[in-house]
Amino acid sequence: MPASPERRMHLGLFILGTGSHVAGWRHPGAMTSFQDFEQVQAIARIAERGLFDLIFMGDNLYADPGAHPSYTLRLEPLTMLAALAAVTRHVGLGATVSTTYSDPWTVARAFASLDHISKGRAAWNAVTTASGQGAGNFGTVHPDHARRYERAAEFVDVVKGLWDCWADDALVADRATGTYIDPARLRPLDHEGPFFKVQGPINIGRAPQGQPIVLQAGGSEPGQALAARTADVVFSVVQDFGESQAQYAALKKRLPSYGRAPEDVTVLPGVMPVMGRTDREARDKLAALQGYVTGSNALQLLSDRLGQDITRYALDEPVPDIALPDSSHGFARVMLAKARREGLTLRQLYDLVAAARGHWVLCGSPETIADTLQHWFEERAADGFNVMPAHFPEGFDDFVDGVVPILQERDLFRRAYEGETLRDHLGLPRPKSRFWG
Amino acid sequence: MPASPERRMHLGLFILGTGSHVAGWRHPGAMTSFQDFEQVQAIARIAERGLFDLIFMGDNLYADPGAHPSYTLRLEPLTMLAALAAVTRHVGLGATVSTTYSDPWTVARAFASLDHISKGRAAWNAVTTASGQGAGNFGTVHPDHARRYERAAEFVDVVKGLWDCWADDALVADRATGTYIDPARLRPLDHEGPFFKVQGPINIGRAPQGQPIVLQAGGSEPGQALAARTADVVFSVVQDFGESQAQYAALKKRLPSYGRAPEDVTVLPGVMPVMGRTDREARDKLAALQGYVTGSNALQLLSDRLGQDITRYALDEPVPDIALPDSSHGFARVMLAKARREGLTLRQLYDLVAAARGHWVLCGSPETIADTLQHWFEERAADGFNVMPAHFPEGFDDFVDGVVPILQERDLFRRAYEGETLRDHLGLPRPKSRFWG
Repeated sequence: MPASPERRMHLGLFILGTGSHVAGWRHPGAMTSFQDFEQVQAIARIAERGLFDLIFMGDNLYADPGAHPSYTLRLEPLTMLAALAAVTRHVGLGATVSTTYSDPWTVARAFASLDHISKGRAAWNAVTTASGQGAGNFGTVHPDHARRYERAAEFVDVVKGLWDCWADDALVADRATGTYIDPARLRPLDHEGPFFKVQGPINIGRAPQGQPIVLQAGGSEPGQALAARTADVVFSVVQDFGESQAQYAALKKRLPSYGRAPEDVTVLPGVMPVMGRTDREARDKLAALQGYVTGSNALQLLSDRLGQDITRYALDEPVPDIALPDSSHGFARVMLAKARREGLTLRQLYDLVAAARGHWVLCGSPETIADTLQHWFEERAADGFNVMPAHFPEGFDDFVDGVVPILQERDLFRRAYEGETLRDHLGLPRPKSRFWG
Repeated sequence: MPASPERRMHLGLFILGTGSHVAGWRHPGAMTSFQDFEQVQAIARIAERGLFDLIFMGDNLYADPGAHPSYTLRLEPLTMLAALAAVTRHVGLGATVSTTYSDPWTVARAFASLDHISKGRAAWNAVTTASGQGAGNFGTVHPDHARRYERAAEFVDVVKGLWDCWADDALVADRATGTYIDPARLRPLDHEGPFFKVQGPINIGRAPQGQPIVLQAGGSEPGQALAARTADVVFSVVQDFGESQAQYAALKKRLPSYGRAPEDVTVLPGVMPVMGRTDREARDKLAALQGYVTGSNALQLLSDRLGQDITRYALDEPVPDIALPDSSHGFARVMLAKARREGLTLRQLYDLVAAARGHWVLCGSPETIADTLQHWFEERAADGFNVMPAHFPEGFDDFVDGVVPILQERDLFRRAYEGETLRDHLGLPRPKSRFWG
């Protein structure tokens, strides 16, 4: 009897500018600007050397010089990922575009185009944009959480609908007859909903992946529902194993009610690995990184992540009982829960936020890191990980050269790219068009 | 006394998908799909071999299978140009984005990002979108011509304002002190106008070119006024020398009233060159291309370009006296004027439109083409040309290998790239920021 195909880890790279650690750019030799495409290209090369499934880039829609460096000075995701498409061959390319501050026609086109350019490696990270700080750049008022998710749900449906307008064989290009497109093989969408009226069809042929991959990261209840219904990959924000296992189970359990199987969605918790030759050396590295944080940038970052000003509280007292607004981000809830559980002071909490903005920090030798990831993976707390290096390139090289080979030896991760498209890497079939099959 | 610097031609490549001729894709060996990035990349390589100033890509916002093939099936301009940025070194990269169907924050970011990725080669073709056929994809009604231009004028100002928010030295990245950005060296825009409220600053540092290049093509009176006030390069639509000379003079004459010099704006008439070893062979080539046009696609294209259905008129009678709507495109006016002047039949007019959508077709041997371009250039009907090959790659190779060397021999065109940025190619200085100098 042939063995069933092995379940393997999936690895994403979260490229947040100069690195996920708020002060990682101060590390000697670290990349200091997220505007230099050559450095971004070098990072993408490391990701392909490490056989990563995808590179993923977040976004924000305002400049705040006191916040995380990469919130204020950065390349724009779609242009950056498109440029990377031309100089990479294998790795998936995920860009964030907000459903609150864009329109479905433009988003559907851009990602279909990125999918053609990359020959099937495009992914759209559909976010509703938690922070309202960008609203002033669009002359508008930030919609509340519930309304953002109502709009997002319709937005994603319209985008997927536009991706389905063309049959695979609509482009005929028959020199002999002069027929370029067979008009019977594309059709409008004619969508009319509470937020959008979109006629279609789109003006680009069906994407190599059929539909580009949809990523989501929403941690709230409507966020989880949207992800369960529409996402191919979910990035989660967790601090410990039990929490991750519970979130994982909860999401997978929702899938059947949308006619989906557990393996249709890949769950990747974010993790900032800090690696040393020994666990001790790794802890020292993290301490050195934390030493780069200045009080002002940590408090500002923490205020930003919690959605309210916390600079008036005492630093060395336990974290106060802050009431989170309805629109609060998953990050904020995860961090406050941990602070209360563990009796953290505000200073300890901001150290945590400075490190990885509320994500899990995994500190240790290559073996310690691999053991922990293996445990999470095998015990169904994750289908893989969204790796968030503290800084580039060293923080990422460490993982690719130290941890990946161990995962490969243990048969937990691929030894070569086996397919062409991001769907292939994720083990997902090319979806049929709702209109054309 | 040193000679004043020679005035030299500038050359742009208008890449309209499979080529500017509506049926050029039927030519043996011609590119048949505008979704294949490898073919686009091959075209860009030809442009760099030909030392072109820039590649420029138009856009449209709807799919119409009966119209020009490249209106319906195409890569999206920003993603395509960003991908080209990663695999080219010299040539400028211009993408069309509509001021009617986008927002200034998004456009300013995208082109600043493209400018960083390309190290100073980005150009934005600011169009108001003549056709209303895309409005249904945005759930809106197409604004009238006057309102589109009012919006465009404010839109361009906001984009340029956002580009000026950062001083060149705002990124400090001082590892020792931990100062990443100097908040005193960037500032908001705080724009409030009839169409837009945009706070700023943008979340990307000042572009390598200071401001990316702005291209425009509007032929109407408000279009000419906008171009004279804000454009660096103007693409014009002309059919003959006298008309081009008059348009050229009219535009240059307007510049001083906006505090600009004649050399601040480069005027590039569009031209579709059809080259043979002899004039006779070139005419035969054009006839062969025209033979590929089917009646149905020409009439549909002509209806599209004129903004009204002309399929009910008699083909072999003189062009009827069609009243153009207020919102009509420059193309439509140029074509109808020519038809009346020359007593063309509808069939002759649609042959003309099929060839180059109303642009000038220049048919001849390399010498004939070079002579004509030289005449236009020296007699101030043009500062150079926007070359619109009928099909790719042959239609473009012909020009680069046949005509460019003659222009170089005559000292009319560069023999090597002399600068790094598109501004350098165009001989334009890096503009000062309105806020920071």
